[in-house]
Amino acid sequence: MGFEGVLGHEFVGEALEGPLAGRRVVGEINAACGACADCQAGLGRHCAERTVLGILGRDGAFAETLTLPAENLLTVPDDVPDEAAVFAEPLAAAFEILEQVKIQAGARVGVLGDGRLGLLCAFALASAGARVTLLGRHAEKLALAKKRGIDTLRSDADGLPAELRRCQDVVVEATGSSAGLFAALDWLRPRGTLVLKTTTHDVPPASLARIVIDEITVVGSRCGRFAPALDALASRRVDPSDLVEAVYPLSQGERAIDHAGRRGARKILLRVEGGA
Amino acid sequence: MGFEGVLGHEFVGEALEGPLAGRRVVGEINAACGACADCQAGLGRHCAERTVLGILGRDGAFAETLTLPAENLLTVPDDVPDEAAVFAEPLAAAFEILEQVKIQAGARVGVLGDGRLGLLCAFALASAGARVTLLGRHAEKLALAKKRGIDTLRSDADGLPAELRRCQDVVVEATGSSAGLFAALDWLRPRGTLVLKTTTHDVPPASLARIVIDEITVVGSRCGRFAPALDALASRRVDPSDLVEAVYPLSQGERAIDHAGRRGARKILLRVEGGA
Repeated sequence: MGFEGVLGHEFVGEALEGPLAGRRVVGEINAACGACADCQAGLGRHCAERTVLGILGRDGAFAETLTLPAENLLTVPDDVPDEAAVFAEPLAAAFEILEQVKIQAGARVGVLGDGRLGLLCAFALASAGARVTLLGRHAEKLALAKKRGIDTLRSDADGLPAELRRCQDVVVEATGSSAGLFAALDWLRPRGTLVLKTTTHDVPPASLARIVIDEITVVGSRCGRFAPALDALASRRVDPSDLVEAVYPLSQGERAIDHAGRRGARKILLRVEGGA
Repeated sequence: MGFEGVLGHEFVGEALEGPLAGRRVVGEINAACGACADCQAGLGRHCAERTVLGILGRDGAFAETLTLPAENLLTVPDDVPDEAAVFAEPLAAAFEILEQVKIQAGARVGVLGDGRLGLLCAFALASAGARVTLLGRHAEKLALAKKRGIDTLRSDADGLPAELRRCQDVVVEATGSSAGLFAALDWLRPRGTLVLKTTTHDVPPASLARIVIDEITVVGSRCGRFAPALDALASRRVDPSDLVEAVYPLSQGERAIDHAGRRGARKILLRVEGGA
């Protein structure tokens, strides 16, 4: 988005002002105008005038304090630790899939990419009763899915292993690479549904032809409502705490960002000294 | 598809053999194996072993005779003239949209492209109660939609006129050009549905980002069942006869193909001398 300013859009913290002052909160990152046709239609997350925390026109969470409209905040239940609550935003994006695509119990769902978002999508979909297979490159990350009873497959190739072709009802593309889009289409049965979570792709024309010929449905999927994610955290249907690899004080933010950039790194947290 | 052989996949003719011998028929163009998992799941039009009339492994309709499995044939009601029945295949592809996407009565549906398929899509969607707007380049073709009560807009620009941005619930892309895909995305409201009818596109990465950010659903759409198309022809809910621009005898096939290639040409038919 060409953003310049304070980064960071995933946080848990204490509300300093407003109706939830003193409470531990998380916050939806899209601040909508409330007045336009999209907002009136309940699509505030798509408001053309919106600001987005740490992404568009609004400083983010890598800071002592941040500001969001009071209506964006949700109280975190006491028994959800910070290390789980801080995943509310990406987990909401994972649960968004379930609001967009009807996933039948027992549906064969593939998740492509074992990064942080891929793992959270796999956890969310498995918690909804889908038969999830996670395909990724990192044994350590796949192990996080495996210990939750999710089928995993490891592949270092860009393309899809031939024996996997044309079998999944739904595939979630969460790799962030063009090869991922191609492999995701290969993995789908005809008339299957591709959920697109990555925004940047070079798209070979052949992949569009595949969408038409096999009548694939592609669903662009971005942010979601926080409530279903908080419910899943509170009930322990999803517990992402073991995705946290390290916690740095905010004063060591640059070291933290270096660490987060290492190949295969899990989640790195920043903690404000003396903060919640 | 790299096809070599007799072209042509839209026809009406007389069955010479089989249970419908002597009857006037049209025929579904995908000949499936009947045995594979896709066929067993009722997805014969997606069978990996299928042949397709005039497109893949099976000679087509620009000929005195053609062959198709008996189960592909449908009898044409007596009061549907040849000039309408010959549109059963592309009209089935237009009605396929209604089987894939739930179109609410009064939904704002844009059709981009006033070629033959774009017109048929506009007719089919309008017959289902959608508020259709057809955007195209050819006054004469737009007039065919207008006389059916369909709103039309003429634009020679590659992009979308600015005042049309972000307003349609559903947009059908039937232009066959990359600029068309971009304009179609621009025309859609957030969370709208793009129906993709064209198989060849160069896709700028920015268009994929738009799909994710605005949570667009893209539905690849190809062939459809013939029965709804024949019903619409029989009841006159859709009468495409005035799309026919000229009829040539098969012996003048090359002239006919030259004519069909003229800019703005409507449908050109071939008639077998002494045929139905």
